[in-house]
Amino acid sequence: MKKAILLIIDGLGDLPTPKTPLQAAKKPNLDKLAKQGMTGLLSPVGNYVVPGSDTSHLQILGYDPRQFYCGRGPLEALGLGMALRDGDVAFRANFATVENGKVTDRRAGRIDTKTAAALAKNLSMKIEDVEVIFQSSVEHRGALILRGLGLNPMVSPTDPHSLGPLQACRPLTPAAMKTAQVVNAFTRLAMERLSKAPENQKRQKPANTVLLRGAGMYRRMLPFNMSFGVNAACVAGGALYKGVARYVGMDVLDVPGATGDRNTDLKAKANATVKALSNHDLVMVHVKGCDSAGHDGDFAGKKKMLERIDRELIPSLAKTGACLVITGDHSTPVSRKAHSGHPVPILVYGKGERTDLVKRFDELSCMQGGLGHLHGRDIMPLILNLIEKAEKYGS
Amino acid sequence: MKKAILLIIDGLGDLPTPKTPLQAAKKPNLDKLAKQGMTGLLSPVGNYVVPGSDTSHLQILGYDPRQFYCGRGPLEALGLGMALRDGDVAFRANFATVENGKVTDRRAGRIDTKTAAALAKNLSMKIEDVEVIFQSSVEHRGALILRGLGLNPMVSPTDPHSLGPLQACRPLTPAAMKTAQVVNAFTRLAMERLSKAPENQKRQKPANTVLLRGAGMYRRMLPFNMSFGVNAACVAGGALYKGVARYVGMDVLDVPGATGDRNTDLKAKANATVKALSNHDLVMVHVKGCDSAGHDGDFAGKKKMLERIDRELIPSLAKTGACLVITGDHSTPVSRKAHSGHPVPILVYGKGERTDLVKRFDELSCMQGGLGHLHGRDIMPLILNLIEKAEKYGS
Repeated sequence: MKKAILLIIDGLGDLPTPKTPLQAAKKPNLDKLAKQGMTGLLSPVGNYVVPGSDTSHLQILGYDPRQFYCGRGPLEALGLGMALRDGDVAFRANFATVENGKVTDRRAGRIDTKTAAALAKNLSMKIEDVEVIFQSSVEHRGALILRGLGLNPMVSPTDPHSLGPLQACRPLTPAAMKTAQVVNAFTRLAMERLSKAPENQKRQKPANTVLLRGAGMYRRMLPFNMSFGVNAACVAGGALYKGVARYVGMDVLDVPGATGDRNTDLKAKANATVKALSNHDLVMVHVKGCDSAGHDGDFAGKKKMLERIDRELIPSLAKTGACLVITGDHSTPVSRKAHSGHPVPILVYGKGERTDLVKRFDELSCMQGGLGHLHGRDIMPLILNLIEKAEKYGS
Repeated sequence: MKKAILLIIDGLGDLPTPKTPLQAAKKPNLDKLAKQGMTGLLSPVGNYVVPGSDTSHLQILGYDPRQFYCGRGPLEALGLGMALRDGDVAFRANFATVENGKVTDRRAGRIDTKTAAALAKNLSMKIEDVEVIFQSSVEHRGALILRGLGLNPMVSPTDPHSLGPLQACRPLTPAAMKTAQVVNAFTRLAMERLSKAPENQKRQKPANTVLLRGAGMYRRMLPFNMSFGVNAACVAGGALYKGVARYVGMDVLDVPGATGDRNTDLKAKANATVKALSNHDLVMVHVKGCDSAGHDGDFAGKKKMLERIDRELIPSLAKTGACLVITGDHSTPVSRKAHSGHPVPILVYGKGERTDLVKRFDELSCMQGGLGHLHGRDIMPLILNLIEKAEKYGS
């Protein structure tokens, strides 16, 4: 039975300076696959639309974000392994330092994961009839869930997004009044408790508040295997990508060493993928490092990460015999230090599949590819057709 | 006045093994047209979506199957020349052999057309207030129409699709209760009458039941000439293709020798096309053989059929002076023995029209073509533009 691997190289696409990182990188394995397979360009969420990582992954996995996007909060919470229920409102959360009502450090002096976990223990509570559940993750990061009747995610963030006054949560619609009140009560109570916490007494930058942003309401969706008739697994380090995968009902694998940063253990991810193929039709592998380097404007770092992927990941994936779909969720040009709407290269390889005349995997070469210009919504039909799991439309 | 021929080579596209049948075939006439015209790839019903023959033809003829697909039953019935009325529910039908409630031969020992016609005479009847009309066609095949108030096509097939117990017809929605009851009453009465039929007494595999599948409700549509302002004719052998053409209101020509199989008389089809052009703006020509060879996994057969088309059909069509649009309704790769979602080559030729750099008509060459990647919905605008029958959009 045919299987597929969907490798998403986050922030893959770039702009020439004068070469792109992908053009400059030594990547014999990717180029070999380009030569033996089909290539093209992908616009993940719409031509020249600048994708978020969340909307792009949803669309690539066959869930139109225009219909199914729930905001970042629930996806991050799911990514931390928190269990969400229909109607929960969730936020991304940050430990931060506040002095005289002003945020003076948005990361609370880069608080360590262990101390953050100790502080987090005292932050779940009941406010009115609303259950408030807090969980910390790596360093200053975490997520907050509100569970109760009459909640609404249309509220402003308390995170000022820069150093400045801590923001009150405001309802953006009358129906979100209660939610805003609960958020503000949580902020007040959390600040009281954190100020008294023994872990904070000796810190120069006490973690004495929790900043919230990315409010969204969770709704259960038709799970992936029921939507597409395939069992799918996710191999990723970053919480957001695990969260998207959980949101659409994929199995999210725990891969020690997959960190979601540039030091991630690609061999470990390759091994997890090979293993996951034994009982899944599709494995999505996510690698974050190129996007991080793009955001940092670090050409050499992005090139190096691409070379690591080519050396440490691609050969193992190719050896599985699974069909390969290799692309990115968006471009993160080094010259822009931000996501951009430029389409990203895509490569499709499978035994017995068509080939084109393209011999290299980069932005310029893939423009000539036989796949042409694809959209994010084309990816699931493409994968289902590759592994012969597509249902015929009509008879 | 400009005219056009739309040649649909059923199952045209393929996968490399290591060449595709189209790459391997000697087809100087098609290659000459590719050289003198424009080429590209066509996704008939959506990128990488696996098309059925019915949905694909509807979409190519400008009728979106998402809106206008009526199921296979009415299309087959129309293809047999049966007259359908608004609200009729129709099925594909098969004579079959049942022993002790189990289907032991889905073709009733490959019953011959004449015997089937004799048996069919006794199978039209009235059940409750519903008129039941049966007609046989070639060998074991036929179609059944139910006509009356309160019918609904959401019923399960009685055809087990393999050797096994004859299935009762079940309503898939409460509104289809009556229809299911009428179908089950028909099956019972048909079995009684068939068992007593003199034609069945000496048969080793008596045609003692009728299997039904592909239920659908017929609705009259805005006919082709009113939709597009062109008079169109269809030259085809297979009932389904004639049925689709009748459904959309094309003139369906009777072409003796057009069998819908690999022995079809291509010269007869060419002659019928030339004749039809005298009083039609557009003639759709359908050739089935390549699809049949694909389903059989018969590379040599598919190649040979392509060579026959190139030799026996293309020169006559080219000589008419009409614009030519040559494509397929889907790929039927020999390596898969089934329809696939891979795009199919398309070729457009007309005097005074643009050309591109492509010199051959095959999957790999057409990837480079100037038409790029087209969708089924693009074909009618393309044809109308070719023959200068398109209405300007705006002023």
